[in-house]
Amino acid sequence: MKRLSTLLLALACASTAHAETTVDRIEPPSWWTGMAVPVLQLMLHGDDIAELEAQIDHPGVTLLDTQRTENPNYLFINLQLSPEAKPGQMAITLFHRGETEAVVNYQLNRRTPGSAERRGFDATDAIYLITPDRFANGNPANDRSADMLEGPDRKHPGGRHGGDIAGMRAHLDYIADMGFTQIWPNPLLENNQPAYSYHGYSATDHYRIDPRFGSNEDFREFVTAAREKGLGVIQDVVLNHIGDHHWWMRDLPAGDWLNGRATEKNGYRITNHARFTHVDPYASEYDKEGFTEGWFVDSMPDLNQRNPLVANYLIQNSLWWIEYAGLSGIRADTYAYSDADFLQQWAARIRREYPNFNIVGEEWTRNPALVAHWQRSESEPVTGGRLKSMMDFPIFYALREGLAQSDSWESGLTRLYEGLANDFLYPEPNRLVIFGGNHDTSRLFSALDEDPALFKMAVAYIATMRGIPQFFYGDEILMRSPKQRDDGIVRSDFPGGWADDKRNAFTGKGLSKPQKTAQDMVRKLFSWRKQTPAVHSGKLKHFAPENGTYVYFRYDDKKKIMVAINKSDQAKKLDMKRFAEVIDGETRGTDVISGRRYTLANLPLPARDVLVLELH
Amino acid sequence: MKRLSTLLLALACASTAHAETTVDRIEPPSWWTGMAVPVLQLMLHGDDIAELEAQIDHPGVTLLDTQRTENPNYLFINLQLSPEAKPGQMAITLFHRGETEAVVNYQLNRRTPGSAERRGFDATDAIYLITPDRFANGNPANDRSADMLEGPDRKHPGGRHGGDIAGMRAHLDYIADMGFTQIWPNPLLENNQPAYSYHGYSATDHYRIDPRFGSNEDFREFVTAAREKGLGVIQDVVLNHIGDHHWWMRDLPAGDWLNGRATEKNGYRITNHARFTHVDPYASEYDKEGFTEGWFVDSMPDLNQRNPLVANYLIQNSLWWIEYAGLSGIRADTYAYSDADFLQQWAARIRREYPNFNIVGEEWTRNPALVAHWQRSESEPVTGGRLKSMMDFPIFYALREGLAQSDSWESGLTRLYEGLANDFLYPEPNRLVIFGGNHDTSRLFSALDEDPALFKMAVAYIATMRGIPQFFYGDEILMRSPKQRDDGIVRSDFPGGWADDKRNAFTGKGLSKPQKTAQDMVRKLFSWRKQTPAVHSGKLKHFAPENGTYVYFRYDDKKKIMVAINKSDQAKKLDMKRFAEVIDGETRGTDVISGRRYTLANLPLPARDVLVLELH
Repeated sequence: MKRLSTLLLALACASTAHAETTVDRIEPPSWWTGMAVPVLQLMLHGDDIAELEAQIDHPGVTLLDTQRTENPNYLFINLQLSPEAKPGQMAITLFHRGETEAVVNYQLNRRTPGSAERRGFDATDAIYLITPDRFANGNPANDRSADMLEGPDRKHPGGRHGGDIAGMRAHLDYIADMGFTQIWPNPLLENNQPAYSYHGYSATDHYRIDPRFGSNEDFREFVTAAREKGLGVIQDVVLNHIGDHHWWMRDLPAGDWLNGRATEKNGYRITNHARFTHVDPYASEYDKEGFTEGWFVDSMPDLNQRNPLVANYLIQNSLWWIEYAGLSGIRADTYAYSDADFLQQWAARIRREYPNFNIVGEEWTRNPALVAHWQRSESEPVTGGRLKSMMDFPIFYALREGLAQSDSWESGLTRLYEGLANDFLYPEPNRLVIFGGNHDTSRLFSALDEDPALFKMAVAYIATMRGIPQFFYGDEILMRSPKQRDDGIVRSDFPGGWADDKRNAFTGKGLSKPQKTAQDMVRKLFSWRKQTPAVHSGKLKHFAPENGTYVYFRYDDKKKIMVAINKSDQAKKLDMKRFAEVIDGETRGTDVISGRRYTLANLPLPARDVLVLELH
Repeated sequence: MKRLSTLLLALACASTAHAETTVDRIEPPSWWTGMAVPVLQLMLHGDDIAELEAQIDHPGVTLLDTQRTENPNYLFINLQLSPEAKPGQMAITLFHRGETEAVVNYQLNRRTPGSAERRGFDATDAIYLITPDRFANGNPANDRSADMLEGPDRKHPGGRHGGDIAGMRAHLDYIADMGFTQIWPNPLLENNQPAYSYHGYSATDHYRIDPRFGSNEDFREFVTAAREKGLGVIQDVVLNHIGDHHWWMRDLPAGDWLNGRATEKNGYRITNHARFTHVDPYASEYDKEGFTEGWFVDSMPDLNQRNPLVANYLIQNSLWWIEYAGLSGIRADTYAYSDADFLQQWAARIRREYPNFNIVGEEWTRNPALVAHWQRSESEPVTGGRLKSMMDFPIFYALREGLAQSDSWESGLTRLYEGLANDFLYPEPNRLVIFGGNHDTSRLFSALDEDPALFKMAVAYIATMRGIPQFFYGDEILMRSPKQRDDGIVRSDFPGGWADDKRNAFTGKGLSKPQKTAQDMVRKLFSWRKQTPAVHSGKLKHFAPENGTYVYFRYDDKKKIMVAINKSDQAKKLDMKRFAEVIDGETRGTDVISGRRYTLANLPLPARDVLVLELH
């Protein structure tokens, strides 16, 4: 399947029989009428295209102006689309000294009704995070693509293993059956890098799904199919950087398209990761620049979003995918590494076009005050680039350390208890995305010393705590990794995703008993969670850890849920008097995981276990 | 010397020849006319005193009413003091069925002019913290006091060693010469406990200096003498608890005078230390009560400040000592452990009476957001009990760990750099009290692996960083302790404070070379700091650590100071280009510690050292 823009340009070329200029790119490759902000900026690429003028004669479309950079191979066309702009093909005539050099037929689509009002993900959801190359190989025919540098090598932990969109699509039932309602795949855009291209964070084309994952249409159909199963799709968006094999790198649109090129001796600095510079009252300009303008790694050129053409390109790109594919959310990678003014424009524009949409930003820090800096409440306008949702890294650390550490006045369960208390810093804690691990961390099971009891506590916590739970594919079958981050192994293949796999986690074939137990527990908890408003939006009250136990409640007018963790090696009996302010007449509880019924009076809590009780 | 209240009551008794009731306590023992809030509540104690009525006939004084509790031995008298209230002795007549039972002569003093406007301590100051029992024994005659349970035992780390007010007074020159401008002694109030009474945090009489430290007059004269040397005195106030040998404990004023007595099976709970409950949106009432109403330890009964008589007693007590002794500040112990509404009343009343006074609260947490919760800006009214100054425990941890840990992307100097960035949370970071150690921590030198180089960096940091520096007695001569807190050893005797001491840190006799070097450095830095407005109120800019070095600047229009720490084992040359935004034409610097002059270009930074350069 040919890529969309190539297709359109083929059409364009066909209609310019006498043209002497080849327009080899026009981006975005299509657009919509009826957007809230009625302007569109097209980037055209072609040899010496900058010397051309543009003309458009299309109902409701006004050519505002054209912009050029010092690179003669780029032309930017600014259009105004009135509410009456006519959907369909719009001819863009490019001429030079009165001679038509090319005519590009550009596709304007009518915006799908209700598109603007689409609901984003929220605490009623649970997100399943997938590394697409490592989940399931639904179409072995696309493992290799003639135009892509890297071929498949399943034996190499850092190589491409062949997983794809077809694989995710084939297992939508599994994901939905596990109780999840959103899928967040790591980025699917073309990453035509010579090595380590599988992870997706080195885009080489912003408008093309990597052919080894499938086509743009495959992605769109996958989103549609997922929606039919009750699953939304969240796109993983990288605003900060690109891959060093991005097509721009062969012909940079402008000298200041990338950060550092103009000022640094070696072309660029590597970022100092000084994420505090956004808030630090004493931060030096040198460090502020070093953070947002430094490159993430050598193979990831850093975009200069202070160049309005770059900013606009990225904003339109995000809107294009939301509208084109029908996304229900964005996960914004390395969020704070981008220019703050740009983030403001980007987030504000998305909110303008999709007021109920949701974006979750990644700010990888232990410090809740810094995460809180980036969060806004739902009703608030976007200021400072703040988002409704942020990844809850502070609780990620508190959960892992709280369970794996032994208990003391400042470690173990106290970390969990005090970590959660920091919620006073957030405008909307229930909008944070909580998780036990992701593609960049060690595996949850391994971080918890491969102790199934601790794993059970972690899952119960994630499934019942305030916020939007996110689960990393394979954690449900206790996939392992070294404790020190090792990407290739953390992102191991999901068993059963490849035709010749001996074990199959989709069917249960070959799974060990602990794996099956874990998978069943995850399925039970998240399926139950889906139906449990008290977890989505109920109140939360917790009690200071005592003797290795930690108890909290989620409750609304209709239901009370008691989560009781016993990390200690001894069975405990819980005196309910301590919880009298929440328990009001309820005398029994049913454990969601085991189905067992308990009498609350002197509640027996098994050693190293957790109960998730629905009280009645 | 007899205690003040006893003296007054002796007078009272003398004038009540026919009295049948003995008033054995009246507190406060005196008061002032001209206070902003013109009311006074007197607590009278005596057998069956509650059955008496009071009458006052004194110009400008109105008896508002009397209050009683269920204990017949207490009577509370509420007075209004008009602006015209006449200073001098005021007779309080106590009668029963028309018969005069006692006449108490109560002392009203005219408030000292300017008292209300006194300046509190601020960032122009540097505080020297002293454990009075362990600093210097100026008056061996008071080591033992006939009416006190515990006698001296200098061999016992937890015993009384004989240090006293006379000892502090004798060494005011030493303290002033070291560059300090404020003295914070651990509490001096009577602690008539059978053991471990030396630390002072178990008051047994709120209006009496412990006789083993001296008398109330001795304390007042010490404050006056200190002031003449340019030294203010900060009182260590304990609002939360008392000693279990407090005189109240023999005859509690009310059943709810202490927390827990009425509700808890064993009389009381021990506090859960859940300091987050003040801010935690999910905190249970059970834990909130457990924190503020739980006892600190068994020997420290917890005051119930929700009883207005208790609250009023404590508020008046603080005002009394400020006015009586001429204090320039208060350090409030275990601040958050008290009832929040009470703290609000207490702090607001002190602000009302002394608008420019300063109080520093102790909230012992690593979490800057929690410390920030308790801080208000200088101009702001008191809300939520917030104070202008808080102890900067987060920076205390960051400093120790930042220096002692090896450097990585999340440890060592990064801790210092990122820790300071948290200042965005505080209304006024320059009002925080920064310190490397205190009476409750291990010794700074020992926490830094007894490495004189790290110690030098820590002292340079404390002397140049924003905020109000606090230094613990003896740290200047590298006093040691185990790394695990060991109170008795941390609070060891200051050499030279006792007549038979072989070493004398006041004169330098017997000090090792590293001790002398350290003492000289502390003296140099703090003496210099005293004269350096750029440190008191200048701007601060810091640069992300690089290769084991960390650089920051303090600067105002007149002076620039560059602090350059090199924690690494190699000498470094610093390229000044990185600091161009601060350095503006300056080409040289003089190190405050060594007096050596440096050329800034390629500044040579010795291995494991710190330079404090005045630029020129």
